[in-house]
Amino acid sequence: MKNLFIFLFLIFITSPIFSQNESQQDSIMLRKIFNEALLNGKSYDWLEQLSNTIGGRLSGSLEAERAINFTKEELEKLGLDKVWLQPVMVPKWVRGVPEYAYIETTTGITSVTNICALGGSAPTPIGGLKAEVIEVQGIEDLAKFGKSNIQGKIVFYNRPMDPTKIQTFEAYGGCVDQRYSGAMEASKYGAVGVVVRSMSLKIDDEPHTGTMTYGDLPLDQRIPAAAISTQGANYLSSMLKLQPKTQFYFNQTCIAYPDVESFNVIGEITGKKYPNSYIVVGGHLDSWDLGDGSHDDGAGCVQSMEVLRLFKNLEYKPKHSIRVVLFMNEENGLRGAKKYAEVADRNKEKHIFALESDAGGFSPRGFSFDCSTEDLKQIVNWKPLFEPYLVHLFTQGGSGADVSPLKKKGNVMAGLRPDSQRYFDYHHAHTDTFDKINKRELELGGAAMASLIYLYDTYGTVNDAVK
Amino acid sequence: MKNLFIFLFLIFITSPIFSQNESQQDSIMLRKIFNEALLNGKSYDWLEQLSNTIGGRLSGSLEAERAINFTKEELEKLGLDKVWLQPVMVPKWVRGVPEYAYIETTTGITSVTNICALGGSAPTPIGGLKAEVIEVQGIEDLAKFGKSNIQGKIVFYNRPMDPTKIQTFEAYGGCVDQRYSGAMEASKYGAVGVVVRSMSLKIDDEPHTGTMTYGDLPLDQRIPAAAISTQGANYLSSMLKLQPKTQFYFNQTCIAYPDVESFNVIGEITGKKYPNSYIVVGGHLDSWDLGDGSHDDGAGCVQSMEVLRLFKNLEYKPKHSIRVVLFMNEENGLRGAKKYAEVADRNKEKHIFALESDAGGFSPRGFSFDCSTEDLKQIVNWKPLFEPYLVHLFTQGGSGADVSPLKKKGNVMAGLRPDSQRYFDYHHAHTDTFDKINKRELELGGAAMASLIYLYDTYGTVNDAVK
Repeated sequence: MKNLFIFLFLIFITSPIFSQNESQQDSIMLRKIFNEALLNGKSYDWLEQLSNTIGGRLSGSLEAERAINFTKEELEKLGLDKVWLQPVMVPKWVRGVPEYAYIETTTGITSVTNICALGGSAPTPIGGLKAEVIEVQGIEDLAKFGKSNIQGKIVFYNRPMDPTKIQTFEAYGGCVDQRYSGAMEASKYGAVGVVVRSMSLKIDDEPHTGTMTYGDLPLDQRIPAAAISTQGANYLSSMLKLQPKTQFYFNQTCIAYPDVESFNVIGEITGKKYPNSYIVVGGHLDSWDLGDGSHDDGAGCVQSMEVLRLFKNLEYKPKHSIRVVLFMNEENGLRGAKKYAEVADRNKEKHIFALESDAGGFSPRGFSFDCSTEDLKQIVNWKPLFEPYLVHLFTQGGSGADVSPLKKKGNVMAGLRPDSQRYFDYHHAHTDTFDKINKRELELGGAAMASLIYLYDTYGTVNDAVK
Repeated sequence: MKNLFIFLFLIFITSPIFSQNESQQDSIMLRKIFNEALLNGKSYDWLEQLSNTIGGRLSGSLEAERAINFTKEELEKLGLDKVWLQPVMVPKWVRGVPEYAYIETTTGITSVTNICALGGSAPTPIGGLKAEVIEVQGIEDLAKFGKSNIQGKIVFYNRPMDPTKIQTFEAYGGCVDQRYSGAMEASKYGAVGVVVRSMSLKIDDEPHTGTMTYGDLPLDQRIPAAAISTQGANYLSSMLKLQPKTQFYFNQTCIAYPDVESFNVIGEITGKKYPNSYIVVGGHLDSWDLGDGSHDDGAGCVQSMEVLRLFKNLEYKPKHSIRVVLFMNEENGLRGAKKYAEVADRNKEKHIFALESDAGGFSPRGFSFDCSTEDLKQIVNWKPLFEPYLVHLFTQGGSGADVSPLKKKGNVMAGLRPDSQRYFDYHHAHTDTFDKINKRELELGGAAMASLIYLYDTYGTVNDAVK
């Protein structure tokens, strides 16, 4: 209890005082933001078009190009001070004809199973690849089994996401190395291919793609890699226990083309007091090609656009310049994010705060802040303002892949944290589609983001407070 | 700030001290509960059977009977100390053939529109009912328009749920009087029928049923009442603006039969220290007939069953007797709840705590407590234990329809508060089906309930603390 008193005392003496009047004004502003989002929100309509009219938007695809044009046009309609495209070279990887795979027992019985190539994977040899399978629970198992057991085989990474993690992103973080580096590492042991259990907590027939790397491996050692559905993974694992010489066949025709030009889409309301100080809100415009990328990350894009629409419609004139950035190529390269940060550096633009939404369009639960403890203390003062909107979580932690290149000492990067229970059911799969979006949940997320940006614009933090 | 200090001081001096050791033990117990629910939970499988094998379970139906037998058998498999059925007479109302309705303009153009009879409604005359329509924004409008404008017409209640309410139950509460009492009141002004805008925040083609009353109206004044989808309501309203003499036709063949016998399903783990002191956890086993009642309230039933399964599997031996009660007839009579409370009173059973889950199987956000401020203060001490599970909301307020008859001075009634954004999209409609349930969200809710009951059993509150 003594510690608690000291803690409270420290809060009281070190936090900038948040007067009664300011707090009331802010309450009113947040209520206006939420009302406008829930009554006249545009994010759901925008997402409907992005998802149902355009569809999956893999970097370098025609759909990505259409999404760039569509969002630029929509931002232009908002009457922002500036809207522009920022060129960036992106990888262009194409899935080819639908993948095909089966499990073949030693007695010759075959069961077709759902797979999809991992993003960036090499194709199988023409006609496909068939080999015996060695099941492992992770990259660290490779050394245990050794080259003699792995050579000539397909490595099957089957460590599942841990269902006891309450935040599903933590469970994802606990096994995504198998997908990202699994092929590169297995190749070093002479494996001929890799099949990875889909990163999902749901047991179903959907394979989930996602990015992978070969690192510096020479071209002839880049073995093909695919994701198998969780149901398929369980079946394959059972078969291997019954018949260890069970074989796996898969065929995929994906191709990596040379890089092509693409764009970040940027819109700005110029700050009336500190026009050269920037606050960014964003999501990534590219998505995987299987679904239509409604949750990952169409939702984050339209919520970010909505933040600026809300400010325009409520006639809020920010002190700092507020930019919406729809980043290109988060999924398989992060080129858009790197380009934005590089140009910002070159132009000596001071970015004091950036907020990303890239965790799905579900009910907002809070925010995670990549910042100093001192800054977090200031931000946590705003928490009571969010309680009427059931936004409770203000934690120190990661922000988002696209805004993290903007991180510098003293500034604050943040990520929206929506309810995460359903996210990995759809993530990178055919099932990430518009029908999984609830209009209100999407709108509440956008309103929560606008509220945080309003408060940051108004009060700043210890390091950059209104100066 | 002074007030805050006084507030904190009061908390410190009045709350039972929650020692470091107790808190650690409790942390460990909650972790065990959540792990067991997420790794070996039965609630999802139970609900799959209740929803997909049995289906909608309106009081007095064959499906309700099957649900009683199924849940009793499943509770018996858990090895509880007692499992029994408690007889209760319930109303039996049958929808009849599917309803049919259309809107007819003055130029004779007809548009078929989706409706459903309200639960308990009288049928239309044979061959259906066609009349002009008067649109109102609520019961209070009836007096404004008066008998001369209403006589011989169909009253169309069109006040929507307020989208700016963050908690959707509040929006529901703000317009459900139109559905419940609309027909009874309109009849007094000579209306011949009633059509009510569905209680949903989603604009779609689904009509949502729900209970209604005629009060003491004589039989010949009981006019038929139906719900129209939100899309249909918007269309009808537009047509009435263009052509005020637009007519509405509807046909429904529903019948109310005499009451039949049904049952509450009850299971008990007898308390080792206070066997005559009871804690209840429950949901309602009946549902409407349109969907399969997965969210309302199959979810609450299987979560409540799961609470007792968790205790058995974790070998937790409660001090108080813990009962799961699956109440019959919440939807159109509350007879099961009244019966349970009546029998409890007759047997002088002391119920110290009851927790209901009847707000859908979505991610648990917290609990609402119907209790004294003093008791709430004790309960709020447990809040930090729930934070790792993202359960943040501990508020004073309503509990649930089924447990509220157990409310007495000094005891505590509570309701689980899951995320409410999607609930009214499905509530009482064809769309309340098993595919809308997420396994983890359902399991997290059950684990949160078990955790609260464990803490209540261990510490009680000021009035009944372990005595």
